[in-house]
Amino acid sequence: MLRLIEFLAVISGGIYGVSLARRQKMDFVGVFCVAFITALGGGTLRDVLLDRTPLFWIRASYFPLMIFGLALVATLLRRWTLWLERSVRWLYVPDALGLGLFSIVGVNYALEAGTSLFVSTLFGVITGSFGGVIGDVVCNEVPSLFRSGTPLYATCSFAGCWLYLGVAHCGVPEDAAMWLGILFIVILRLVAVRWDLRLPE
Amino acid sequence: MLRLIEFLAVISGGIYGVSLARRQKMDFVGVFCVAFITALGGGTLRDVLLDRTPLFWIRASYFPLMIFGLALVATLLRRWTLWLERSVRWLYVPDALGLGLFSIVGVNYALEAGTSLFVSTLFGVITGSFGGVIGDVVCNEVPSLFRSGTPLYATCSFAGCWLYLGVAHCGVPEDAAMWLGILFIVILRLVAVRWDLRLPE
Amino acid sequence: MLRLIEFLAVISGGIYGVSLARRQKMDFVGVFCVAFITALGGGTLRDVLLDRTPLFWIRASYFPLMIFGLALVATLLRRWTLWLERSVRWLYVPDALGLGLFSIVGVNYALEAGTSLFVSTLFGVITGSFGGVIGDVVCNEVPSLFRSGTPLYATCSFAGCWLYLGVAHCGVPEDAAMWLGILFIVILRLVAVRWDLRLPE
Repeated sequence: MLRLIEFLAVISGGIYGVSLARRQKMDFVGVFCVAFITALGGGTLRDVLLDRTPLFWIRASYFPLMIFGLALVATLLRRWTLWLERSVRWLYVPDALGLGLFSIVGVNYALEAGTSLFVSTLFGVITGSFGGVIGDVVCNEVPSLFRSGTPLYATCSFAGCWLYLGVAHCGVPEDAAMWLGILFIVILRLVAVRWDLRLPE
Repeated sequence: MLRLIEFLAVISGGIYGVSLARRQKMDFVGVFCVAFITALGGGTLRDVLLDRTPLFWIRASYFPLMIFGLALVATLLRRWTLWLERSVRWLYVPDALGLGLFSIVGVNYALEAGTSLFVSTLFGVITGSFGGVIGDVVCNEVPSLFRSGTPLYATCSFAGCWLYLGVAHCGVPEDAAMWLGILFIVILRLVAVRWDLRLPE
Repeated sequence: MLRLIEFLAVISGGIYGVSLARRQKMDFVGVFCVAFITALGGGTLRDVLLDRTPLFWIRASYFPLMIFGLALVATLLRRWTLWLERSVRWLYVPDALGLGLFSIVGVNYALEAGTSLFVSTLFGVITGSFGGVIGDVVCNEVPSLFRSGTPLYATCSFAGCWLYLGVAHCGVPEDAAMWLGILFIVILRLVAVRWDLRLPE
């Protein structure tokens, strides 16, 4: 089940990364690198910090190939993807999906590694949102995660991770609790973007 | 003894990080992230490079909680902390303390891992100052560590680490040598800030 | 043989890094840090991601000392190195050498760690070019690797890694295949800079 969620998360992250890089008019290498970092960066940081080896995209070596394919398609079918990107609202959907899916994967891997509950939710947030943070840093922007005046992001992930842990603790079956957490994060993120929910400064 | 020094270093680093983030008008998530990176980033990089597992803040999981509490207090008692931050001179005290404390911890951990003397002093510098470097990079600034025209920083750490190693080598008891090194770094840093000591360009 | 190539790569990377930092008018600490990151950053990222321990510059602790010496010489003999840097064309030679040498080292280490062929070429590219990427990020620039409108860089490394793997697979002796790959990358990079070859945007 974790593998399936991870698979969906990498696809969502890759689509988001490709769109991001295309908006900056990068060439194929740039598109591939940014998509790679956005899709696999958060999980890589998680694996390095938890000392999980080999890294998830070395073990499952089709992940880099998938990103490579995505970047290739986006470069060859440029006009089609540009049209996609112009419909900006759509961009938030893979982003929100990636956030939700990666967060719950991150919590699970951290618990497996024996961390405390609080630290495991931090790993949820790191896995879910730090691909985007590293992507922003590499594109020379202050990560939107840290700026005030942007809609809730890390907060969605953090709240969803606690919801998942709480619900699982109350005896709800593991799988159902995971999908509930993911759904909660995705919906909260989409709601936050739509009505521009923020934390007070 | 190392644990105590590390504890003090995390508090100093956290206070410094919170002040830094508050000056950039970040919201709670931003304040927590920047404080986390500033306080725990240098030690995390050290542990990853030395392959020490689990990371010091996973083993001692009250560290992230402490930073969380600090960020919460700073956000709730905003007016009080703003007043603190305006008295800019004070900001250099936790920063200098963190530099001194973390540097000596870093040298010790590196020696434990069997590195050469020169490499161990580099780990002192990394542990002491790279939390701030990563924090600067994430806030989209050229790290002040690398700019010329700023007072001595890494140099204080480097000199203090060699002083500690030299004094310990001459038979001074370990604990005394450690506190001597810390004191040297803190005072040298405060003197450098006060009289704007720099390296020639 | 790998050790010799690595040795040459660190020298090339260090010279390139020193020149880069001197152009930004950094002081000694800045020059040392940027040279360290440029020369050893790509390999460090490779070792961390592959979980190779100890890091290559902790095992071979003369590498940091060499960079230290280089930075010292560049700072003391400032006028001489400034003259060197003004002859900009020369700067591309150590850069291209570093790219070629590090890439082939990276592929080998990744294969040793048991990665797939595609992932091993990615490690070639990471080892060869990510020192420069981290250097650019730290100096607060969008990595030239990701910008379009710059000559081929990662592409040279990627193509050379596949050439090396293909030639070695066809029965050419290991050492000859390695030098062939290196030569190919260096020449392709120099040609790309000279005639400004680019990927289409």
